[in-house]
Amino acid sequence: MHSILARVREEALPIARQGKTADYIPALSSADPAALGLALFDAQGAMHSCGEAERRFSIQSISKVLALAYVMSELGEAAVFSRVGKEPSGDPFNSIIRLETSAKRRPFNPFINAGAIVVSSLMPGADASERNEGFIAFVRRLAHNPGLAMDEAVFLSERESAARNRSIAWFLKELKLIEGEVDDCLDGYFMQCALSMNAVELSRIGAALAMDGIDPSTGQRALSARASRVIKSLMVTCGMYDGSGEFAVDVGIPAKSGVGGGILAAVRDRYGIGVYGPALDERGNSIAGIEALKRLSGALDLRVL
Amino acid sequence: MHSILARVREEALPIARQGKTADYIPALSSADPAALGLALFDAQGAMHSCGEAERRFSIQSISKVLALAYVMSELGEAAVFSRVGKEPSGDPFNSIIRLETSAKRRPFNPFINAGAIVVSSLMPGADASERNEGFIAFVRRLAHNPGLAMDEAVFLSERESAARNRSIAWFLKELKLIEGEVDDCLDGYFMQCALSMNAVELSRIGAALAMDGIDPSTGQRALSARASRVIKSLMVTCGMYDGSGEFAVDVGIPAKSGVGGGILAAVRDRYGIGVYGPALDERGNSIAGIEALKRLSGALDLRVL
Amino acid sequence: MHSILARVREEALPIARQGKTADYIPALSSADPAALGLALFDAQGAMHSCGEAERRFSIQSISKVLALAYVMSELGEAAVFSRVGKEPSGDPFNSIIRLETSAKRRPFNPFINAGAIVVSSLMPGADASERNEGFIAFVRRLAHNPGLAMDEAVFLSERESAARNRSIAWFLKELKLIEGEVDDCLDGYFMQCALSMNAVELSRIGAALAMDGIDPSTGQRALSARASRVIKSLMVTCGMYDGSGEFAVDVGIPAKSGVGGGILAAVRDRYGIGVYGPALDERGNSIAGIEALKRLSGALDLRVL
Amino acid sequence: MHSILARVREEALPIARQGKTADYIPALSSADPAALGLALFDAQGAMHSCGEAERRFSIQSISKVLALAYVMSELGEAAVFSRVGKEPSGDPFNSIIRLETSAKRRPFNPFINAGAIVVSSLMPGADASERNEGFIAFVRRLAHNPGLAMDEAVFLSERESAARNRSIAWFLKELKLIEGEVDDCLDGYFMQCALSMNAVELSRIGAALAMDGIDPSTGQRALSARASRVIKSLMVTCGMYDGSGEFAVDVGIPAKSGVGGGILAAVRDRYGIGVYGPALDERGNSIAGIEALKRLSGALDLRVL
Repeated sequence: MHSILARVREEALPIARQGKTADYIPALSSADPAALGLALFDAQGAMHSCGEAERRFSIQSISKVLALAYVMSELGEAAVFSRVGKEPSGDPFNSIIRLETSAKRRPFNPFINAGAIVVSSLMPGADASERNEGFIAFVRRLAHNPGLAMDEAVFLSERESAARNRSIAWFLKELKLIEGEVDDCLDGYFMQCALSMNAVELSRIGAALAMDGIDPSTGQRALSARASRVIKSLMVTCGMYDGSGEFAVDVGIPAKSGVGGGILAAVRDRYGIGVYGPALDERGNSIAGIEALKRLSGALDLRVL
Repeated sequence: MHSILARVREEALPIARQGKTADYIPALSSADPAALGLALFDAQGAMHSCGEAERRFSIQSISKVLALAYVMSELGEAAVFSRVGKEPSGDPFNSIIRLETSAKRRPFNPFINAGAIVVSSLMPGADASERNEGFIAFVRRLAHNPGLAMDEAVFLSERESAARNRSIAWFLKELKLIEGEVDDCLDGYFMQCALSMNAVELSRIGAALAMDGIDPSTGQRALSARASRVIKSLMVTCGMYDGSGEFAVDVGIPAKSGVGGGILAAVRDRYGIGVYGPALDERGNSIAGIEALKRLSGALDLRVL
Repeated sequence: MHSILARVREEALPIARQGKTADYIPALSSADPAALGLALFDAQGAMHSCGEAERRFSIQSISKVLALAYVMSELGEAAVFSRVGKEPSGDPFNSIIRLETSAKRRPFNPFINAGAIVVSSLMPGADASERNEGFIAFVRRLAHNPGLAMDEAVFLSERESAARNRSIAWFLKELKLIEGEVDDCLDGYFMQCALSMNAVELSRIGAALAMDGIDPSTGQRALSARASRVIKSLMVTCGMYDGSGEFAVDVGIPAKSGVGGGILAAVRDRYGIGVYGPALDERGNSIAGIEALKRLSGALDLRVL
Repeated sequence: MHSILARVREEALPIARQGKTADYIPALSSADPAALGLALFDAQGAMHSCGEAERRFSIQSISKVLALAYVMSELGEAAVFSRVGKEPSGDPFNSIIRLETSAKRRPFNPFINAGAIVVSSLMPGADASERNEGFIAFVRRLAHNPGLAMDEAVFLSERESAARNRSIAWFLKELKLIEGEVDDCLDGYFMQCALSMNAVELSRIGAALAMDGIDPSTGQRALSARASRVIKSLMVTCGMYDGSGEFAVDVGIPAKSGVGGGILAAVRDRYGIGVYGPALDERGNSIAGIEALKRLSGALDLRVL
């Protein structure tokens, strides 16, 4: 397995030169565009990795998966999906127009910003810090890293450059889709985006999703089976920004990306996968990360579709 | 297997009373809303069916899958996807607005009407009849029914009540996405929608998709592996109209529905499935058909996500 | 007055070099971009003109004013405005999206293509030729030119390059906003757009509008007062394509332009104005024509706002 | 004149029963729906009024006219119109979608909320209070009331129920169309909306607009001629929310309404008009106020179109 990963990494790496790191906050733009880390955690609990698989990065939109898992665990499915849909939207992740124009006037799914802000606002806790504490504790358990934490500098940058997200959040407030103070709600959302993780940790979480909620390290249930299925389904239809459809065609497994360069993927009954490659394509997905997953999907026959 | 199918059918049938048949053309509205046919064709080439699995109906939008398969077989992937995208749109199947507003000004995918009309226009042949002849020959081979044919009455009704599709087609003409005469192009599209099939035949085609293009009846390649994968991926993200995301969550397999009440599904390496249940939910999907697939997915652990 | 017109023409002419003639049909693209004709018909029935004021051109969208006047005269206000609104839309003249997205699902006003096609379909007559006969007779009376006629070549070109208008018309058919055959309805619309007139004739019609429907040549009522007012109001809010607001600011009088280079304007109780200048700005308005009207408005204090 | 006003008021009043007061803040909902005040200030400096013409109310969106006048006076035309268009939009006053979808990505005009927030942010001053001080001083001079002030309770209510406006403002911030702090910018905007005035004062300001900027009370220039013209033109195309086109048809003069029940109108060279009638139609315009203006336009032949 290690040689497969190493070969895939070597073949995928050159395409990183065609991408570039996210530039809207310093912490992301300064990442090494030539990094590429792969981690694969299997159903028997064995970890395989190569490259920069332990380098920490900001998970950004991958947190949308974790936040949904946490809120579904705490409050159940209906609490979320009475306020957010389950359908792909065809719009950019930061689009606001459907909140004004769609018949139902709610976010199309939890993986666009509007939906994720609603999910984040549902976390139990009196304020952003308290909500985030519970959330981080949940992620630490899933990732088997009790030291996992938010990157404070990323959080502060995020908060500084958030005009569009503030616009979205105030629109959600108008629609009565979020409770409490808008600024506090957004702080919680920025904190979750600023979580610092690595590909190895993502692969562990992916494995729990792959096993319908059973953590292969422990054999214990980490997530409900239903939450795992909902999340993997949404990852397939909406996980890779505007490239979700193409990714489904080319790779064929549930995955969620973030502009920090990470990708979290889950192959039913077989593997959790974590990828880190901060050079992005024009849709905001790790360009070498997608290439690596394409090759890995071929090499290991991962495609579920 | 037969007892599973029979039980699933029995459990799913009552919900048909909550749906109603399509009412825009007589041939569809007069269908028996209490019909429910299930057919499952397995990797070993065995057919299992129950209920109205041999009742013929108009495949309507399921033809979008077959047309895409045919055109990809004849002309390759690029010929289609230079004109049509691979992304879900979040809009109704008959929406026109993205043709005017989207940056790329092309249909988002081949399973909304705009995309399917483009695909249909690409079929080789001098006119609608000739194009349709080649198409029907292709479907006959896949379905193992040399007598398979278009329902003339449905075709004529379709053509009579097609103002929205004509509007879409003329917009596509303006964008130079279709060649030839618009009326002729639409005739071809209506012919393909009016194909009369049954659940048994759909299950055979689903099985070829499930086997990445190998027909289990013959062990021969019926479709390219790539076409099979592209199609199954699009079925997951865009196959069930505005309910694609929810279907992925609840059932978790690639499927494509039509307002005639049919559903075609494919479970990788295992089964092709055909369903017929003409009572529709408000999104245009067979209401008892979805219920049956939900229960079948649970009973046979079909979910791939 | 003649010296004012001559000076205005001279000052406005150089800007024509910054525009270009419409290029979607040959008859328009071959016009002389340096032509500029001005005609002003006053309340006492005196005609003043200079430049290419008698050169004939295709009136194109100016026909939307004449068609509305004709249909309001024949059928009354309600017949039109139960199907078309009176509000500016902010969209391009050939936009289709509001037909799908607006709450009322009807064209915003009679001066965008969708609205004008509806108005045209309301003209009395069994087919396009018959409808157009009545319409041309009406325009001949207003223009005092019994020989006024359609330019057959323009009509045929128009009909050839009309994919977008066909798309709009079929959408209107779907919304049940037009009766009869779509192709026949469009033929009538293209005929009216292909009417060949000159600036002198436009100024006569403008004068009748300016006098609330009384033709100053004869002292007789040519249009109802109400129709005149409705039309002038719509000219102010929607007459100059996407430049209507700016034209109201810069010139301040009701006007309607066409991509043939014509402009028809009406100054209450004072003047009808006709302009011809086929070099267009990027919005499709006569670039020298607008410049001339700006200067004329200053020189004669025409602004009504 | 007084008897004309009295008769018009009497005839228009009954229709107030078909409207209702704005209900989103207490100060507006508690207004007397049967009130109707009319004031007409003529070119000779004579004031005519009847009914509740001196009752004070919150001017709300009428402040968009005054803010534009103030900023054009202070900074010139280009400072505003480099950031805001001059075109009607066809969208609701509080729409956000064009900020995301339009090619120019700026508000269509200064009389929708998005445009007015930009204009407000341009007022000179270090913070909202300071900006508002200059603005109120400007309005006091125009209205000849040195005691004119903001209604503190309205301002506070406004600020409390402003989620949609905050969403718009943050989107404008993202587009770099407003400087400074968003909350402070909005405070200034809410202050201007909360200005308390009466119909008599509005008629004085309308008269200055009617006289192209000359205040008929003093014979002095109160506004630049250009500002007056720009404002009146925008009032015609965009002054009456989604009913601007219909108002132009039915009344035919530049006017601007507010949900407090006020209307400000200007008839070139003749009259400024102020109206107060807090019962609103479904578009947010004073229902009896529009009726009164329709009748007044007929009685005094006010229509300029």
